[in-house]
Amino acid sequence: MNKKGLAILMRARMRPNNDPAHLARSPLANVVNQTISNSNGSQSSTGSEKLNASSNTKRDFELVRESMHSAISMSKTEILDSVLNDFSEGYFRLSYENRRNLLVQLAKEYDLNRTQVRDLIKQYLGLEFPGTGSDNVPSLGFAEDASLSAFYRIERNLRHSLKPMYEVLFERLNTHPGGLKFLSILRADILSILAEDNLASLRALDSYLKEKLSTWLSPAALELHQITWDDPASLLEKIVAYEAVHPISNLIDLKRRLGVGRRCFGYLHPAIPGEPLIFIEVALMKNVAQTVQEVLWDDPPIPECDATCALFYSISSTQPGLSGINLGKFLIKRVITLVRKDMPHISTFATLSPIPGYMQWLLSKLASQSKLAEGEDVSNSSADRSGSTFWENILEPEEEGALMDASVEFTTGKNSMEVMLNLLTSANHEWTKSDKLLSVLKAPLMRLCARYLLQEKKRGKALDSVANFHLQNGAMVERINWMADRSEKGLHQSGGIMVNYVYRLGKIEDYSQSYFSAGHIHTSNDLCRYVEPLKEPQITAE
Amino acid sequence: MNKKGLAILMRARMRPNNDPAHLARSPLANVVNQTISNSNGSQSSTGSEKLNASSNTKRDFELVRESMHSAISMSKTEILDSVLNDFSEGYFRLSYENRRNLLVQLAKEYDLNRTQVRDLIKQYLGLEFPGTGSDNVPSLGFAEDASLSAFYRIERNLRHSLKPMYEVLFERLNTHPGGLKFLSILRADILSILAEDNLASLRALDSYLKEKLSTWLSPAALELHQITWDDPASLLEKIVAYEAVHPISNLIDLKRRLGVGRRCFGYLHPAIPGEPLIFIEVALMKNVAQTVQEVLWDDPPIPECDATCALFYSISSTQPGLSGINLGKFLIKRVITLVRKDMPHISTFATLSPIPGYMQWLLSKLASQSKLAEGEDVSNSSADRSGSTFWENILEPEEEGALMDASVEFTTGKNSMEVMLNLLTSANHEWTKSDKLLSVLKAPLMRLCARYLLQEKKRGKALDSVANFHLQNGAMVERINWMADRSEKGLHQSGGIMVNYVYRLGKIEDYSQSYFSAGHIHTSNDLCRYVEPLKEPQITAE
Repeated sequence: MNKKGLAILMRARMRPNNDPAHLARSPLANVVNQTISNSNGSQSSTGSEKLNASSNTKRDFELVRESMHSAISMSKTEILDSVLNDFSEGYFRLSYENRRNLLVQLAKEYDLNRTQVRDLIKQYLGLEFPGTGSDNVPSLGFAEDASLSAFYRIERNLRHSLKPMYEVLFERLNTHPGGLKFLSILRADILSILAEDNLASLRALDSYLKEKLSTWLSPAALELHQITWDDPASLLEKIVAYEAVHPISNLIDLKRRLGVGRRCFGYLHPAIPGEPLIFIEVALMKNVAQTVQEVLWDDPPIPECDATCALFYSISSTQPGLSGINLGKFLIKRVITLVRKDMPHISTFATLSPIPGYMQWLLSKLASQSKLAEGEDVSNSSADRSGSTFWENILEPEEEGALMDASVEFTTGKNSMEVMLNLLTSANHEWTKSDKLLSVLKAPLMRLCARYLLQEKKRGKALDSVANFHLQNGAMVERINWMADRSEKGLHQSGGIMVNYVYRLGKIEDYSQSYFSAGHIHTSNDLCRYVEPLKEPQITAE
Repeated sequence: MNKKGLAILMRARMRPNNDPAHLARSPLANVVNQTISNSNGSQSSTGSEKLNASSNTKRDFELVRESMHSAISMSKTEILDSVLNDFSEGYFRLSYENRRNLLVQLAKEYDLNRTQVRDLIKQYLGLEFPGTGSDNVPSLGFAEDASLSAFYRIERNLRHSLKPMYEVLFERLNTHPGGLKFLSILRADILSILAEDNLASLRALDSYLKEKLSTWLSPAALELHQITWDDPASLLEKIVAYEAVHPISNLIDLKRRLGVGRRCFGYLHPAIPGEPLIFIEVALMKNVAQTVQEVLWDDPPIPECDATCALFYSISSTQPGLSGINLGKFLIKRVITLVRKDMPHISTFATLSPIPGYMQWLLSKLASQSKLAEGEDVSNSSADRSGSTFWENILEPEEEGALMDASVEFTTGKNSMEVMLNLLTSANHEWTKSDKLLSVLKAPLMRLCARYLLQEKKRGKALDSVANFHLQNGAMVERINWMADRSEKGLHQSGGIMVNYVYRLGKIEDYSQSYFSAGHIHTSNDLCRYVEPLKEPQITAE
């Protein structure tokens, strides 16, 4: 496809999920910088429904199952290529239900030979490890070296016997043209199935496949590519299709993001040519931007030599099947190194990021706490899954007063939390159109946003997926910005608030480490004032 | 370096082993198509001697050992980069002895935590695998799914505990810039050490590292690149340096090999840029060439559209540390596919290959058999390591008669085998300068060469390394050619005989498979006549 084709594509606003054939072959784009919320239109067209629509006979299923069996058990590699083709082509034609059955069979019937494992364990336990230090001496006794060899051999056999049989399928697909991409699609399907039904055997298969994919996609095998207007339209089309944070609206917008004052970098794998696995968009700026408008619509951009800040304003992963494999961390580190080398005058590396889970958390909190405040039983309510069931007034007294005063003409409620809930859920984000409401809501929304980012955890990690992403990569939470994204999506996700994470040179690994090991979050003094740092030893202000 | 630099390099006949600094960082080129025989000058400058020359203090060793320990045990990845640099830089400065000590320590002190393995085995044996088929039903009991999860978790932990600690070092080096190349050098050193002293622990480490390298260098991660005169001189320089079968003598020779009627393809890995891991040289010909002269000095070449045969006349691996990882098989298959697609008029894919082990085998056989014929005790003789100690006259009666008649003016001997031995080992290959000797030696040399290629085995595989390489890739032994390589090396290795292996389309996988599983060798009728096929069910004539 040439650039003209790209323009047509842009006019048609084509997205991968508009094409059912394409959908069946490639699940929806994964979004690192965004959790897909319910209102996000793209969610509704995921796998299951569409795949069920094309009816599959039992015979179709049997054929694919047979080719899967051959792909695992046969040894002639020339015929193998066609078997692998049959398998992947057949798989794409299966309905969601049949894919699910097939994957469960793979997980259960092709895992370990446990009889063999137990036999080898018996042999292993029957051997003592021959005395250490002995084979350091060149004149080692032959018998001792032989028993050492036997020991290592059994250990190795045991290690191999603990590998599931489905590893063969994964390994073979990986060396098969198009196979890596197919494995990534397979895993996306597995994740969809697991989201509905957490089957232990399929979970074990997923964890194994994820390990293999991590190895194959090691940063050493990935090529960092600067995406420019000179790239093929077939590649640029992917950027348009998979950009998930700030959708690209037209050709001028795309050209702008690849032009002066902007950079776009992607990781390419040789086995998946012309399709970056993940890409990041960078704006070169004088200061850390506070609103998305500054980034997307500052025209003309500043001269590049005046820039002091590289702002990462969008990072999108194109492969949902690579979920949990953190390519972004390596990408960000390499981009920082590259930008520093090319432009030594740039000293600040920051993001302008959405806070995708904030409103969902807040509304659920307000609903449950308001009910608890009224003494209602919320144990059967599904409204609050993440919040606490202990009562807590999440508003400060002065916030409550101002809120009750200002809201009378708009809504009512049994208590201030219900009032806030009603305001925030009003149709078309009415509250953003009243200066009065904006001014009274700003204080609690900003304060609670800081709390959400810095204190709300899930298994010791930040509850917000984007926060967790940047914190584990070694960033700190620098600043939150009021009305930074007034788009429908921005208001819906985070009440329009955006956050700047900062990657401080020389501190990245320290921060990453302390976040990993202790859930420690570094933040600025400004932001720290919103929460009560004394109660939170896991937050450090700078 | 530009092309002019390359020309200077060629005039200086620079080879990697002329540069001691380079040598320490990169062991000698490995040669797939050739075993390095004693007379091969390059052999004398391998690792050990040179590395011992630079004296190393105990302190040097300790520093490298410490950085190795840090590289395995530390968790901060930013500092890790510098630790890995320290380790690899330090390693290059170590003497051969210190490298050996370090690698043995790595193998012994960083293998498994066997206490943990035994604990996990105990836990594992304490669990029964929960009933199969049960989690196929969506409404699976929670308790049963939980016990399945626990079972999978312990199985996974056991699998992980069986991974040696040095895996961490390998994994980290693999993701470190230059690390893959370093690992390949490390393994080359390990192989040198093992060749001297077959330590069980180091053998186990080598086998583990080889497995890892195989995964990282899966064909999916490799890029097939056609090497042409338009490539950077820095890459062409590698071709000159590593071409091991038919050394490239000057710029015209190199240009010729990349020009009309010729092709050169290499496998590149993104982590080792500008240096093919293996490359193959192809001549497009009317017929399967019988002599190396036809390939290297046919001037002008035939028009490409008249070619019916693609002749692989040289395949060289640049990384001795990748020994045993058969990249050549995939390379040959991909090149065949590519050439067929580009030039459908080419129907024959053959090699013109050296027989590097033939003379060594034959001379040793003649020496031991001649002594046995005289009733001498050869049990203390180190001359015959590969041959049988049972007496066998390896010459036919008519060959013996002709040989004794013709040789009187040149040499004497107690029997015909000693006469043949004396003739073949005469200074400057005198026998090749006498038409009389050439004509009487041709029959036994050709017949015994066929026997050597088709019948002499080591652990069920062809004794000759090049034969084994092509046979395992799925070739057949088509023809042997008298006086096909009259160079010093050719006469020394194989009495000037060369062999054509043929890759028969549609049969490659069958042949590869039957060779792998049963040591079966396919050959032509012509060649089969030399040996006695009835006695050899493992040889099939076509």
